[in-house]
Amino acid sequence: METSCHDALLFTAEHPLRLRSGATMAEVSVRYETYGTLNAERTNAVFICHALTGDAHAAGRRPGDKRPGWWDTLIGPGKPIDTDVWFVVCPNLLGGCQGTTGPSSTNPATGEPYGLDFPLLAMSDFVTVHRRLGEHLGIERWAALVGGSLGGMQVLEWILTHPSEVDNAIVIAASSRLTAQNIAFSAVGRQAIMRDPEFRDGAFQAQGTSPDKGLSVARMMAHITYLSEDGFQSKFGREAQSGELGHNFGVDFAVESYLEHQGNSFLSRFDALSYLYLTRVMDYFDPFATPDATAALAADPAKVLVVSFDTDWRFSTEHSRRIVRHLEGARVPTSFREISSPWGHDSFLLTIDDYHRTISAFMERAAA
Amino acid sequence: METSCHDALLFTAEHPLRLRSGATMAEVSVRYETYGTLNAERTNAVFICHALTGDAHAAGRRPGDKRPGWWDTLIGPGKPIDTDVWFVVCPNLLGGCQGTTGPSSTNPATGEPYGLDFPLLAMSDFVTVHRRLGEHLGIERWAALVGGSLGGMQVLEWILTHPSEVDNAIVIAASSRLTAQNIAFSAVGRQAIMRDPEFRDGAFQAQGTSPDKGLSVARMMAHITYLSEDGFQSKFGREAQSGELGHNFGVDFAVESYLEHQGNSFLSRFDALSYLYLTRVMDYFDPFATPDATAALAADPAKVLVVSFDTDWRFSTEHSRRIVRHLEGARVPTSFREISSPWGHDSFLLTIDDYHRTISAFMERAAA
Repeated sequence: METSCHDALLFTAEHPLRLRSGATMAEVSVRYETYGTLNAERTNAVFICHALTGDAHAAGRRPGDKRPGWWDTLIGPGKPIDTDVWFVVCPNLLGGCQGTTGPSSTNPATGEPYGLDFPLLAMSDFVTVHRRLGEHLGIERWAALVGGSLGGMQVLEWILTHPSEVDNAIVIAASSRLTAQNIAFSAVGRQAIMRDPEFRDGAFQAQGTSPDKGLSVARMMAHITYLSEDGFQSKFGREAQSGELGHNFGVDFAVESYLEHQGNSFLSRFDALSYLYLTRVMDYFDPFATPDATAALAADPAKVLVVSFDTDWRFSTEHSRRIVRHLEGARVPTSFREISSPWGHDSFLLTIDDYHRTISAFMERAAA
Repeated sequence: METSCHDALLFTAEHPLRLRSGATMAEVSVRYETYGTLNAERTNAVFICHALTGDAHAAGRRPGDKRPGWWDTLIGPGKPIDTDVWFVVCPNLLGGCQGTTGPSSTNPATGEPYGLDFPLLAMSDFVTVHRRLGEHLGIERWAALVGGSLGGMQVLEWILTHPSEVDNAIVIAASSRLTAQNIAFSAVGRQAIMRDPEFRDGAFQAQGTSPDKGLSVARMMAHITYLSEDGFQSKFGREAQSGELGHNFGVDFAVESYLEHQGNSFLSRFDALSYLYLTRVMDYFDPFATPDATAALAADPAKVLVVSFDTDWRFSTEHSRRIVRHLEGARVPTSFREISSPWGHDSFLLTIDDYHRTISAFMERAAA
């Protein structure tokens, strides 16, 4: 499938981005990809929200790509999000590091990378930027918003605050309120980064270095939470990485090799400050704490599908049930599926028949 | 209760310690504490095996101590391990850093701290050292061995290999074989330490530094696994550390403050190399993989009590059940209790009525 990659300068000094915190940003550029064709009535647009370490490249292959986009199993001709039917848009998040303005971008006020001068973000800021992208594309209504994990949280924020622009929404393996344990894992990951001496109070880029060791440790730890205990056991067990266990402090067990690979390969594609900023948005996200959180959506409901995975212990089914309870309490038409899968949180990225059938059926009803 | 603290030089150049790996150590000193009085028949001796970051100071207060020993709730006059009845011995582990020879001790061959020249250890090496401590004390039989977590694993190794010296054994919140996820958590903790630039290939002590940042991150992460998700939630929830959430990258949520405190306070009492050595012993421990692992114990069985906690997800009840299955398969008289407690793995250190009643009852039968 052909992918179409674009950069759009969506906010400028004349039309700055106003953040929820009150801060403004005079220059915000967004990278996004599109797949499929927008119909003449502009009624077939689907918006994809990526997860913490995702990017705009959700599907297809760009010239030279060894692997397709991160959600290629779900998006494409004849796939659950069928690009013969839908025009699919996927942008990189504000605060990210893969084309959209983030803490590693140049701060126009100083000519240096932002570093920790980049403003703290909220989930609603993502929505503000993405609604502007819709305007830019001439799309006033989205047939569907779809996101997993952090992406699902953004979908939830969007439908709660601007439901009239959305017909359907799919919220996968997400949370409306992180638990203390969820925050704890995020916090330790951030500490691994910030305690790395190469962090340099966030000015590492200007100083020509980067907290690679801390970032790789954060990523390794996060990967433990993305897979279920049984998933780890069936994938690796206590197998040696090569031949027999060598009894040393190096990479001896296969599971150690897996984690080392995940930690090190992450460094080439992700920025430590983006990791801090995006994880912190999740920690603070708590939309149902607002009085009348569901009032706007209740008045103009989108159809919502909430999906969880039974072995996901990062955002367990209980997180999804809480979202469903709030939406049903507001009489929002909500479908809920707990999918059985051995692979924990990672399941939302994998091909699991029951999962894909559920998405297909919902999207077919959306097209009808 | 009075504590009595001693250092004993148990292995010397004339009588070196032979490790399972084949290496020898010419000088091993062990710190241990005792509580209560050894009877004339020497039949009331109880041996305590500490967990990963425990030490010889299990009970009572030393002059100036603000807090009693780490198992003071369990050991003392009238307590489940009643020092009016039992003579209790608790040593610091070989490879540790609180009085017993470990990687921060001076290598007699070089006059420098061992660092990574300290030999890799196995669970059986702990038993070898502790049996020698028994000889030193003139104790040929132990009325009971008692240990939690790593300590319980050592108890298991001891009864499998030298059952004739043991009448009773209590194995609490332990494992006979770490899962891939268990190893993953250990591995990431070690990576946090070894990737700290102050680690200096293990020679940090000789170079006057220490990998404090890595060690504190390892400890913070480990603490997430010591408490259950519900325990974290009821203790901290999403509460702010002070007043309202401040929205920043610092310590804002109460759970972040808890982790920071745990990480930092650990530095004053623990050595990064001991952390590597002792966690690695747990990773490789797999006693039932040996053919006829239970033959010796079956021929001369000790009475065994295995205890797990229902919310422990570091070493879940399934780990304890596996131990029980192997022991019962060898017709070893084995009692098993899964204790209900909201506090996860940490429960073995806490006062939980049902837990303490179970230990009391077993120890009363041991005394009868």
